[in-house]
Amino acid sequence: MDYRAESLKKHYEWRGKLDIQPRMPVTNRDELSLAYTPGVAEPCLVIEKDPEKSFELTGRGNLVAVVTDGSAVLGLGNIGPEAGMPVMEGKCVLFKAFGNVDAFPLCIKSGDVDEIVRTIYLLSGSFGGINLEDISAPRCFEIERRLQELCDIPVFHDDQHGTAVVTAAALINALKVVGKKIGDAKCVVNGAGAAGISVAKLLMRMGIGEIILVSSRGIIVEGKPGINPAQQAMAKITNPRKLDGTLADAMIGADVLIGLSVPGIVSGDMVRSMAKDPIVFPMANPTPEIDPDEAIRAGAAVVGTGRSDYDNQINNVLAFPGIFRGALDTRAKCINEEMKLAAAYAIADLVTDDVRKPGYVIPLAFDKRVGPAVGRAVAEAAVKSGVARKAPDA
Amino acid sequence: MDYRAESLKKHYEWRGKLDIQPRMPVTNRDELSLAYTPGVAEPCLVIEKDPEKSFELTGRGNLVAVVTDGSAVLGLGNIGPEAGMPVMEGKCVLFKAFGNVDAFPLCIKSGDVDEIVRTIYLLSGSFGGINLEDISAPRCFEIERRLQELCDIPVFHDDQHGTAVVTAAALINALKVVGKKIGDAKCVVNGAGAAGISVAKLLMRMGIGEIILVSSRGIIVEGKPGINPAQQAMAKITNPRKLDGTLADAMIGADVLIGLSVPGIVSGDMVRSMAKDPIVFPMANPTPEIDPDEAIRAGAAVVGTGRSDYDNQINNVLAFPGIFRGALDTRAKCINEEMKLAAAYAIADLVTDDVRKPGYVIPLAFDKRVGPAVGRAVAEAAVKSGVARKAPDA
Repeated sequence: MDYRAESLKKHYEWRGKLDIQPRMPVTNRDELSLAYTPGVAEPCLVIEKDPEKSFELTGRGNLVAVVTDGSAVLGLGNIGPEAGMPVMEGKCVLFKAFGNVDAFPLCIKSGDVDEIVRTIYLLSGSFGGINLEDISAPRCFEIERRLQELCDIPVFHDDQHGTAVVTAAALINALKVVGKKIGDAKCVVNGAGAAGISVAKLLMRMGIGEIILVSSRGIIVEGKPGINPAQQAMAKITNPRKLDGTLADAMIGADVLIGLSVPGIVSGDMVRSMAKDPIVFPMANPTPEIDPDEAIRAGAAVVGTGRSDYDNQINNVLAFPGIFRGALDTRAKCINEEMKLAAAYAIADLVTDDVRKPGYVIPLAFDKRVGPAVGRAVAEAAVKSGVARKAPDA
Repeated sequence: MDYRAESLKKHYEWRGKLDIQPRMPVTNRDELSLAYTPGVAEPCLVIEKDPEKSFELTGRGNLVAVVTDGSAVLGLGNIGPEAGMPVMEGKCVLFKAFGNVDAFPLCIKSGDVDEIVRTIYLLSGSFGGINLEDISAPRCFEIERRLQELCDIPVFHDDQHGTAVVTAAALINALKVVGKKIGDAKCVVNGAGAAGISVAKLLMRMGIGEIILVSSRGIIVEGKPGINPAQQAMAKITNPRKLDGTLADAMIGADVLIGLSVPGIVSGDMVRSMAKDPIVFPMANPTPEIDPDEAIRAGAAVVGTGRSDYDNQINNVLAFPGIFRGALDTRAKCINEEMKLAAAYAIADLVTDDVRKPGYVIPLAFDKRVGPAVGRAVAEAAVKSGVARKAPDA
């Protein structure tokens, strides 16, 4: 199927991918008086006394805003807020389909960090969580950090943390397949943008042996000129051997390559230079850093990509619906590292010993067990780590 | 039924009155590829080239934001944004049920006019229209005016204009019942807030003989101390006889009294002082300015209130769903006076000569003809007055 032509046709038919439906009829005076005036005054007054009740008496308790400024939409770049909307609507569809989370798309007509932060903050009382989407780096770091400081609901930049969680999940199982321990694994992350940095941080949290970040300028190392502040900070905590050089240099002897960069920049020879039984996740979309078949021919023991037409699709849809499910169920104040790790292990654990193999280290995108399992694990982690404001409903 | 207690119970059951549902399944790879990546890139690129296409390729073309700052919610006053949400959700329910318009509630955590304007403007690319709700006067005037200047989608403060439209509709038929011409009618509007001023303006546009506005300080007349700028502007174009004094003074000899003020301040004697066959619309909610039965005993020929348990309920739900229906169907840039008047006459015309009587001057709230009839009339007026960007679909 020519997905793009067919998708355009469908979008003209759908005229929007979300339908907003009342949960009750209003066909007579009694029904109107309960859903609206005069009855509605009572829940208003209850919330006025205790704003926390808004999570129970309005849709807020199950509602996430999917927010973009349109600055880094898919691989399309800065296409503006209106043009980003089809992606945001699609994301909301996935929230509902995979996590039973109500999600609503908002595109902000501004590229200014202060304005974006202020706008979302002023709306945060209408939502139970904020999913930031397709906002370019390094602005996305500051926006997320400042918003989470202002808001007592979770703020989650999926391009960073969702990617980190699913990558970690795939890596947990891939390491089991090749019989290596995470503490011994040397890992190269190619792509030092928002996703690459978040992946590196989560893997370090999991105790990975070594992380080397590589950008288009080469290996991220302390003192390197021309790297941005986020990369400078990463230089201090990664690359313990202080390697400098190219991606090819970094990959020599590495156990794991994670690609979050551009198509086709990894060669078979570079894979052959890696340690025995290397794990290769070339996740550039839609064209990976190296063709999966070529990576296997070059000796890769496990290969995972972002694509649905190869084994081991490392797809964010495995993470974000369940992560917000668990956060909303516990009314968590944020989505912390413990919750992300719990999500990664919950995803990985669904691929049990008896079925795990090089071509199956991560559940399929449509595996219905994933959303609920991630939700439960994240809820538990929220409670344990002290950021939950309620116990999940039984 | 104790509506308030029962409504609170229902709100705990509903946990939000709106459900956000995908319009398509995403249960396999093909479906996901059309609703989301990679297919979704194509509608994004089409919108990037021509942002106007966002009205066809996203939900925007049928989507209204219902926005408040929580500063004047129902009769409850400034209860804050979170506490205003049950009302906003209820309003969205009515948009869908009566106009088939998708509507989404947003509560802004700020009382500052500049911030409210800027926040809504930055989100306006996600919507096809903005319905302002329960924002206190006189801030609501400036917010609406500035937003409409910034946005090329309709901005409509329902508390003002919706009220004006339904009041005008009821008055058109009430005047027919008593056999008076609008050009001869002397009308007193008690309540010189947002709604009262908007009612006065629309009736003047319809050619009413005379309008006198009355506030809690008495008759609005030029040079009166302590009246706000909006009232000063009205003083210049109303009250041609330069009357001063109280509500009772204004009502002497009047043909019409419209109350948008507080309970119980109109007496039977004041009604008796009016012209022959007076029309009395005491619309304070939930307790009218005068008990409808008492008004009739005092000689009122037609009485209408905001209440569903008396004849002639003058309810905004007759207006706003159809008004936005017509505006969205024609992609109107604004909702102008022509469109409001068209809505008023469309509502009035549904009460035909054969059924019109003192107790039936306005359709019932649940009359299913109203939304579509108003939508058609408003669409036609949008095209005729030159603010439509497309013809309504056949």
